[in-house]
Amino acid sequence: MTVSPLAPKSFPILPTVAGVRFATAQTGLKYKNRPDVMLAVMDEGTSVAGVFTTSKTCSAAVDDCRAKLSQAAGPVAILVNAGNANAFTGAAGRATVAEISTQVATATGVPQSRVYTASTGVIGEVLEPSKITSHLADLANDLSSDGLPDAAKAICTTDTFPKGATKTIEVNGQSVQIAGIAKGSGMIAPDMATMLAYVFTDAQIAQPDLQNMTARLCAKTFNAVTVDSDTSTSDTLMVCATGKSGADVTQNVDFEAALHTVLLDLAHQIVRDGEGATKFVEVRVTGAASDTDAEKIARSIANSPLVKTAIAGEDPNWGRIVMAVGKSGVAADRDKLSISFGDILVATKGWVDPDYSEEKGASYMKNEELVITADLGLGNGTAVCWTCDLTHGYITINADYRS
Amino acid sequence: MTVSPLAPKSFPILPTVAGVRFATAQTGLKYKNRPDVMLAVMDEGTSVAGVFTTSKTCSAAVDDCRAKLSQAAGPVAILVNAGNANAFTGAAGRATVAEISTQVATATGVPQSRVYTASTGVIGEVLEPSKITSHLADLANDLSSDGLPDAAKAICTTDTFPKGATKTIEVNGQSVQIAGIAKGSGMIAPDMATMLAYVFTDAQIAQPDLQNMTARLCAKTFNAVTVDSDTSTSDTLMVCATGKSGADVTQNVDFEAALHTVLLDLAHQIVRDGEGATKFVEVRVTGAASDTDAEKIARSIANSPLVKTAIAGEDPNWGRIVMAVGKSGVAADRDKLSISFGDILVATKGWVDPDYSEEKGASYMKNEELVITADLGLGNGTAVCWTCDLTHGYITINADYRS
Repeated sequence: MTVSPLAPKSFPILPTVAGVRFATAQTGLKYKNRPDVMLAVMDEGTSVAGVFTTSKTCSAAVDDCRAKLSQAAGPVAILVNAGNANAFTGAAGRATVAEISTQVATATGVPQSRVYTASTGVIGEVLEPSKITSHLADLANDLSSDGLPDAAKAICTTDTFPKGATKTIEVNGQSVQIAGIAKGSGMIAPDMATMLAYVFTDAQIAQPDLQNMTARLCAKTFNAVTVDSDTSTSDTLMVCATGKSGADVTQNVDFEAALHTVLLDLAHQIVRDGEGATKFVEVRVTGAASDTDAEKIARSIANSPLVKTAIAGEDPNWGRIVMAVGKSGVAADRDKLSISFGDILVATKGWVDPDYSEEKGASYMKNEELVITADLGLGNGTAVCWTCDLTHGYITINADYRS
Repeated sequence: MTVSPLAPKSFPILPTVAGVRFATAQTGLKYKNRPDVMLAVMDEGTSVAGVFTTSKTCSAAVDDCRAKLSQAAGPVAILVNAGNANAFTGAAGRATVAEISTQVATATGVPQSRVYTASTGVIGEVLEPSKITSHLADLANDLSSDGLPDAAKAICTTDTFPKGATKTIEVNGQSVQIAGIAKGSGMIAPDMATMLAYVFTDAQIAQPDLQNMTARLCAKTFNAVTVDSDTSTSDTLMVCATGKSGADVTQNVDFEAALHTVLLDLAHQIVRDGEGATKFVEVRVTGAASDTDAEKIARSIANSPLVKTAIAGEDPNWGRIVMAVGKSGVAADRDKLSISFGDILVATKGWVDPDYSEEKGASYMKNEELVITADLGLGNGTAVCWTCDLTHGYITINADYRS
C-alpha cells in the first residue's frame, strides 16, 4: 500500500501526557507483521467523554462504551483491536466484549465498569476473545508513558499513514498537554466515519463538562468530514482528561480552542487518507437560508460521485456543483446562486461570470488542495466540510478488500 | 465507447402509434457523426402527462414544460436535443427555450403553448437556438410514423445503447399500442435521473387521468432506479396519448399494467446502461416498520459506494449491507436483521446463518444479475429498487467527461 499523496510530511512529535500509559501487541488476528492491538491505562481521577456512531446497527463494543460513559472521574482503561470489527456477530459479539473487558480489568486493576473497548475491521466475523486476552499480561507489563506513537500505528486498518496531533497551552500559568491519535480512511461520512480517535490531556475537567465540549467540537470536526458517505458501525471518539496538570479547564475557551485544533487536525488527516484520495477539498457554503440548509448543501456537494470524479479528473465542471446544490432538497434559486473555485469567481447569480475562463478553472483544479464555495444568495446560513476526490484507487481498494 | 455488458440483446421492434410522427437531424452541436435532435408531432386530440426533476436548480426547459402541462387534449410537439443541457444559463436559457418552442410552432403548426422541449448534456454552456432552429424546416418535412427507433438514438448522450420498449394490449376488442424510448446512464438517481423518457400510445384518456396514472407508475419505475445518487437538472418523463385507437383507457387496469411494464423496462435499461456497470442489482427490503422506511433502506443500500464496489469485486461482503441498513437512519434492530443473496440465506436475526459459506456467497456474486434482500424483522414495510455496481469504468467516464 503506497502512502497517500496528501499525507502530512511527518508524524508529529507527541508529548507524554501525565497519567496515561500505553502498550501495543501483535495478535496476528488479521495483520501478520505489525502490532494490531493497543492498551491505554489512565490513573485515578480521569474523566472520559465520548461520541459514537449514529448507526442503527452499531457494534456491541459501541453499545458497551455508551452505557459506561456517564461516570465520575476514576481510573480508565481502553483496549482497541484492528482487523476484526466484532460487529453484526449477534450474542457472540456481546460475549466477546464482556470477556475482553473483564480480562482487561483483571490485568490492569481498572474496574470492568471503566474499561472501554473498540474493534475495527471486517464486519460479521466472530472475534474470538482469547486471540486478544492471551496478550493482556504482556500488554499490562509493557505500559509506558511514551507509547502513544506506537498506539497510533496499532489501530490502523486500511490507513496508509498513522495519524497524530498535539497542542500545548498554558492555563493559569500551568502547561497543559493535549495529544491524540486516530485511524480511518474508508467508510468515512458525517455522523461519523470508520473512524476511531482517542485524545488524551492532563487537564482537569468534570465528565459532564468534558462531554458537552467534546460533542460540540465533534460536530465541527469529525462530523464535518466525508470520504464516501458511508457510516461505520463502530465509530468512536473518546477524550480522556487525567487532571494531572492540576489546571482546571472547565468552560476554558483557550482549552476548547486547543482541543478543537487537535480534533480538526485528526479529522483532516482522515480525509487526507481517504481511500484513493489525490485531492483535499474544502467545501464552503454561504448565503443559505439557514445553517442547517447550508450543511445539507455542503454534504450534498461533498458526497456527490459526479463532483468527486470531476475533481479527480481536474475538470472544472462547475455544472456538477449546480446539480449537487439542486439535489440537496433545500431552498435554492438557480438565478441567485454563485460558485467559486478558490478566489476565482466561476458563476454569479445563475450564470457563468464574464471574467471566468475554462483555462483559469482548469489551472486551479491542478492544485492538491482545493476550496469550492457555493453562495446561495438567500440568507446568512453557512457551513464548511471537507472531503477528497473519488478515484480509481477507491475502486481498487474496495472491490477486493476481503480477498 | 463499448456497449454495456448488461445491454438487451437487441433493440425491440417498435410499432407505429397512430397519430404520432417523428424526425431526427444532425446539428453538430456536440456530436459530429450522428443525429442529435428529435422532433415528435402529435395530432389533434392528444393528452400529455409529465413528471419532472425535483432539482431546485432545474433547467429552463423543465420550467417551461411544467407550466404547459395541465391542458386539455390537442395537437402536441416535442423537441429534444442532446449534447447541451441548457441548464444554469440564466436569462439566456429562458430565451433559448422561448425561441426554440416558437420556431417549432411555426414549423409544425402546433401552438407554441403546446410545444415541449428538453435538452440534455453539459450544464452551464449557452445553447445557441439557431443551431437547432436552422434544422426545423427539414425536421418538419421529414416527419414519419416509423421514426421512433431513430429518435431513440438521437436523444442519447453517454448512453452505450438506445433504449426502447413496447407493449400491445386489447381494450374492449380494440388493439392499443404503447411504445416508448429513453436515454440516460450517468447522474441517475431517484427523483429522478439525467433521464429523458417519452412514451406514446394511441389510447384515449383525459389529461388529469393520464397524469395521475403516470405519476403513480413513475414512483415504482423511474424513481426506483439509481446509478450514482446524483440527480439531474433536466429529468423528464412524458406520456402522450393520441386517442387514435378510440379505446378509452380511463382507470383501465390492463392499460395501467401495460404502461407499467413499458416504463419499468425503460427504467431497467437505464440502470443496465449505468456508467461502467457490470452487474444489474435488485435490492429488496422486507419487514421494515413501514413502506417509507423500507424505501429509505433500499436506497441507502443501492447508493452505498462500499456496497457497490463490493459487488463490482464479486465480493459477498454482506457486512457492508448491514452498514448501509444502519446508516439509513430509520428503525432497525441488528438482532432481527436477515440478509439474503438470491435464495441464499446469508445472515439471520443478527448473525451469519449456520448453513452459509463464503464459497456459496462468492459463487452467487459471479452472476451478472443479482438480488439482495434485507429483512428487517420489524413489520410489513416493503420496497424494491434497482441499481448497478460501481467500477473503474464509472471513474474513467466521469473523470474526463468534458475533455
